[in-house]
Amino acid sequence: MKIAVDAMGGDFAPGVVVSGALEACREYKQPVILVGDEAAIHNELNGYSGTDLLEIVHAPEVISNNESPAVAVRRKKNSSIVRSVSLVKEGEAAALVSAGSTGGVMAAALLGLGRIKGIDRPAIVSIIPSLKGGTVLLDVGANVDCKPYQLVQFAIMGSLYAEKVMGISFPRVALLSNGEEDTKGNELTLAAYPLLKMTELNFIGNAEGRDIFNGTVDVMVCDGFVGNVVLKTGEGLASALIEMVKEEVNKNMLAKLGALIAVPALKNFRRRLDYAEYGGAPLLGVNGIAIICHGSSSARAIKNAIRTAREAAENNLIGSIRDSVQDGPRREVGS
Amino acid sequence: MKIAVDAMGGDFAPGVVVSGALEACREYKQPVILVGDEAAIHNELNGYSGTDLLEIVHAPEVISNNESPAVAVRRKKNSSIVRSVSLVKEGEAAALVSAGSTGGVMAAALLGLGRIKGIDRPAIVSIIPSLKGGTVLLDVGANVDCKPYQLVQFAIMGSLYAEKVMGISFPRVALLSNGEEDTKGNELTLAAYPLLKMTELNFIGNAEGRDIFNGTVDVMVCDGFVGNVVLKTGEGLASALIEMVKEEVNKNMLAKLGALIAVPALKNFRRRLDYAEYGGAPLLGVNGIAIICHGSSSARAIKNAIRTAREAAENNLIGSIRDSVQDGPRREVGS
Repeated sequence: MKIAVDAMGGDFAPGVVVSGALEACREYKQPVILVGDEAAIHNELNGYSGTDLLEIVHAPEVISNNESPAVAVRRKKNSSIVRSVSLVKEGEAAALVSAGSTGGVMAAALLGLGRIKGIDRPAIVSIIPSLKGGTVLLDVGANVDCKPYQLVQFAIMGSLYAEKVMGISFPRVALLSNGEEDTKGNELTLAAYPLLKMTELNFIGNAEGRDIFNGTVDVMVCDGFVGNVVLKTGEGLASALIEMVKEEVNKNMLAKLGALIAVPALKNFRRRLDYAEYGGAPLLGVNGIAIICHGSSSARAIKNAIRTAREAAENNLIGSIRDSVQDGPRREVGS
Repeated sequence: MKIAVDAMGGDFAPGVVVSGALEACREYKQPVILVGDEAAIHNELNGYSGTDLLEIVHAPEVISNNESPAVAVRRKKNSSIVRSVSLVKEGEAAALVSAGSTGGVMAAALLGLGRIKGIDRPAIVSIIPSLKGGTVLLDVGANVDCKPYQLVQFAIMGSLYAEKVMGISFPRVALLSNGEEDTKGNELTLAAYPLLKMTELNFIGNAEGRDIFNGTVDVMVCDGFVGNVVLKTGEGLASALIEMVKEEVNKNMLAKLGALIAVPALKNFRRRLDYAEYGGAPLLGVNGIAIICHGSSSARAIKNAIRTAREAAENNLIGSIRDSVQDGPRREVGS
C-alpha cells in the first residue's frame, strides 16, 4: 500500500516534503511515491537511496495558489497535484498527501476521483485538540453556505472518521449552535436538527463553542464559514495568550520561570490547533483518500499526514462512507 | 444622572447587586436607583445608609430565566426589569443595568424604549480583550439570522460605541469572514460587503477570526450565531488551556512555579472573555442605554457595568446612533 506525496506542494517544497516522506519511510516502513520534478527531488535526496520504499513519479508542473484551481487542474495534467490524484484513481497509491494549493487539491480530487455517491459536497475535517484527546470538526472551509442535508452528510462522514481512523466507538455527534437547547440555532441548524435526529448516528443534539475543547463531543458539525471562524479564532486566541503570558513574565524573575513552562505549553497547543500542521486535514466525500496539509508544513507535519493517510486507507474509510451514504442517512453507523 | 440597577437580577441577587451598586456609589460618586423588593434590598443594606447617592424603587416581581420574556414583561409590570426600563423611559434614570434574564431585558427594552428609528434589530455588543486593548464584537447573540443591511446597522452602532465610549477615533470596522480577500465570505457577508463599502465608516474589509485578538480591528461585525460561537469558543479554549498548563505544571517543582504566573494570567483572560463579567454587554439599537450582565456576575462586575452605563450616557451614545442612522448608512461617522 503506497501513498502518493505531492513533492512540489507547500512553501518549502520539495525540501521539507522529501524529508517528511523519508521520515515516514523510515519510521513507519511506509512505501511512498514522491510526485514532482524528478531532478529537483533527486537533488533533495542528495544521492541518498537507502530505502527501497521510495519511488519517484515525474510531474514537472506546479499549480500555484494564485491560479484558478478549476482551470489549473484541467490545463496542468502533468502537475504534481493532478498526477498524485491520478495515482490514487489508478490504484497505484492508496491515498495522497499534498501541502499544495487547497483549492487545487479539492478541484483535482473532485475532477479525478469524483464524489462518493450520495455525498453532495466534500468537506474538510480538522481534528481539534481537546481535554480528552481530539474533536472532529467539519466542515472547516470547503463549503461556506450549506443546506441542512449537507450538514447531515458531514455528520455521517465525521462519525465514520472518528470511528474508523480515531477508534472511537459510537462517536457522540453534535451540531455546533448558539445554545444547547433544541430551540436554539439559526435557520440552517434548526432545519438540520430533526434530520440528524432521524439518523442512527449517536446524535447528542446541539453543543456550544466551548464543547469543542472540553471532550464532551466527538464530532462537531457546522458549515464551512463557521468552521473557518472557529479555527482562526482558536489560533488567534492562543497567539494572543502567548503574548500576554510573555508580558506578564517580563515583570520579575519568578515570572520568568513561569514562562519556561507556560509558553511552550501554549505554543504546543497553538501548533496542534493548526490542523494542517497536525496530521493534515482529510478531505472527505471524494472517492479516494486525500490529506491536505498547510502550505507552511514542516517535515514532521508531512510525516504525520502520511500516517493519517495510511490509517484512513488501512481502515477502509472510503468504503465505509460509501456503504453508509448509499442507503441514505438512516443507515446505522457504528454497528 | 442616575443609573437604574435591577437589584433582583442574577444568580446572587440581591446581595451582590447591592454590593456592586454601593461600590459604584463610593468609587465613582455615581447616583444609583436600586430597583427591586424594598425589604430584601434594605436587608442587604443592613442598616447602611452612609450614602445619599442611593435610592430604592420598590418592584417586588421577578422575571426568571424560565419564563417567556415576551409574555413575562407584559404581565409583570412591577418586575424589577420592567420598572428599571420605565425609569429610563421616564427620564428618571440615564441608563439601566441588569444581570437578570437577557431575553427579559431585551424584551422589556424593546417594548418600553422602542427601537431607534432606522435600526431594524438591536444587537448585543461584547468587548473582547485584544493585544492592543479591546475589540468591539457584535452581534453576539441577539440575532441568529441576519440580513445584509442589518450587519451594516451593527457596523454603524459598533463604530459609534468604539468612538464615543472607548474613545477610539475613526474606528477600523471589519466584517468577520473566512478570509481577508473580498471574494471570501458566505452569502450574507458577500452581500453586506459592498453595502459597508458605501458607508463612510472606516471599513477595512474582511477580517478573520484571529484578528479579533491581535488588535488590527476595532469593530468586528458578524451575525449573532457566529458571534455566540466565537465567544463560546474563546471561553472554552481559555478553560482548556488552563487545564493543560495545570497538567504540565504538576510534573515538577520548577513547573509549579510556572503555574504561579501562567494560570492566573490565563484565568484573568478567560474572565475578560466573559463579556458580561467585564463591564457588561451593551444592548444597542433601543432608545435608551441598557447594559446586560451575566447571571453569575460578581459585585465587581455590577460595578463595572454601572461604569460602562455611565460612560455611554455621558457620551450621548444613543443620540449619536440616532443621528447617524436617521439619514441612512451613508452619513459620515467619526466626524
